[in-house]
Amino acid sequence: MQKVVVLRWGHRHRDQRLTTHVALTSRALGACGFVLSDISDLKVKETVEKVKNHWGGDFEFEMKTPWKRVIKDWKAQNGISVHLTAYGENIQTSNVLQRIRDTGKDVLVIVGSQKVPPIFFSESVSDFNVAVGNQPHSECASLAIFLDRFFDGQFLGKEFYDAKRKIIPQVRGKKVVDA
Amino acid sequence: MQKVVVLRWGHRHRDQRLTTHVALTSRALGACGFVLSDISDLKVKETVEKVKNHWGGDFEFEMKTPWKRVIKDWKAQNGISVHLTAYGENIQTSNVLQRIRDTGKDVLVIVGSQKVPPIFFSESVSDFNVAVGNQPHSECASLAIFLDRFFDGQFLGKEFYDAKRKIIPQVRGKKVVDA
Repeated sequence: MQKVVVLRWGHRHRDQRLTTHVALTSRALGACGFVLSDISDLKVKETVEKVKNHWGGDFEFEMKTPWKRVIKDWKAQNGISVHLTAYGENIQTSNVLQRIRDTGKDVLVIVGSQKVPPIFFSESVSDFNVAVGNQPHSECASLAIFLDRFFDGQFLGKEFYDAKRKIIPQVRGKKVVDA
Repeated sequence: MQKVVVLRWGHRHRDQRLTTHVALTSRALGACGFVLSDISDLKVKETVEKVKNHWGGDFEFEMKTPWKRVIKDWKAQNGISVHLTAYGENIQTSNVLQRIRDTGKDVLVIVGSQKVPPIFFSESVSDFNVAVGNQPHSECASLAIFLDRFFDGQFLGKEFYDAKRKIIPQVRGKKVVDA
């Protein structure tokens, strides 16, 4: 199976809650790692590690590495990069998702926060520019749908290994058990 | 087709960016309206209306109405309510999405921000409690996947009527035209 890691670019401290959601979405939807590039944010790191510690799974959190280095290293290891942007090829009306799958390579998903520099659209950064709809909405929503479709939804039903706690789905109310 | 409106409960001013993302996700993924219950937030309203004005579509934004009233009115008009929560029936491993479709009724999707009161899980508030995976992640991600699956992805390829601007999907770069 192709591995996915998420690169979050352009984080500012006011994006703290949103970046935390992007990281937790990455984990829950099947990415095996998350890089907060160029900057440290201990609050984001703390929340993500707390979730991982309680709810399990393999998920690597990294921060501060310069984005250029992340991409260079990824490509050096034969990975491809996918930039999520409202301007890219439409995930619903084009065959872009199939072409990404067909590479068979591990995928670095690039998720901007503020407006990205034009170079992000170029081949030197992004092998694919993918639009989860060509409407402005949310990088968190785009990432969620991209991962759900890429992995055919299978991660939403997955057990996370090494979990301390586990939710038992209920029609009504909450049920959490020790795992 | 079943209509969907999103009810955002528990918004605080520090949720401003996240709530804005939830509202824009609602619009882009096919909901026809959004209610920010119990509170006013002019910044959220302004951003959503600006997006609607530029990028088109029918999308009603409402705020400050008490949540109990929104739900009471919705049910009085024969609608059903769906509460998105990590504790609910799993959208991937259960048949809950099909049962919601089978009602044929319009859907009010309830999306919490802070921890919701226990009554939200009861029949008086929620006809269905749906988990977009039983892992903690993001209400924005949950809503995006719920809508994408509910509408079978069709809204991601949809043209929004009455748009002033329109993105033309590109392999590289950005192309926006006047519509």
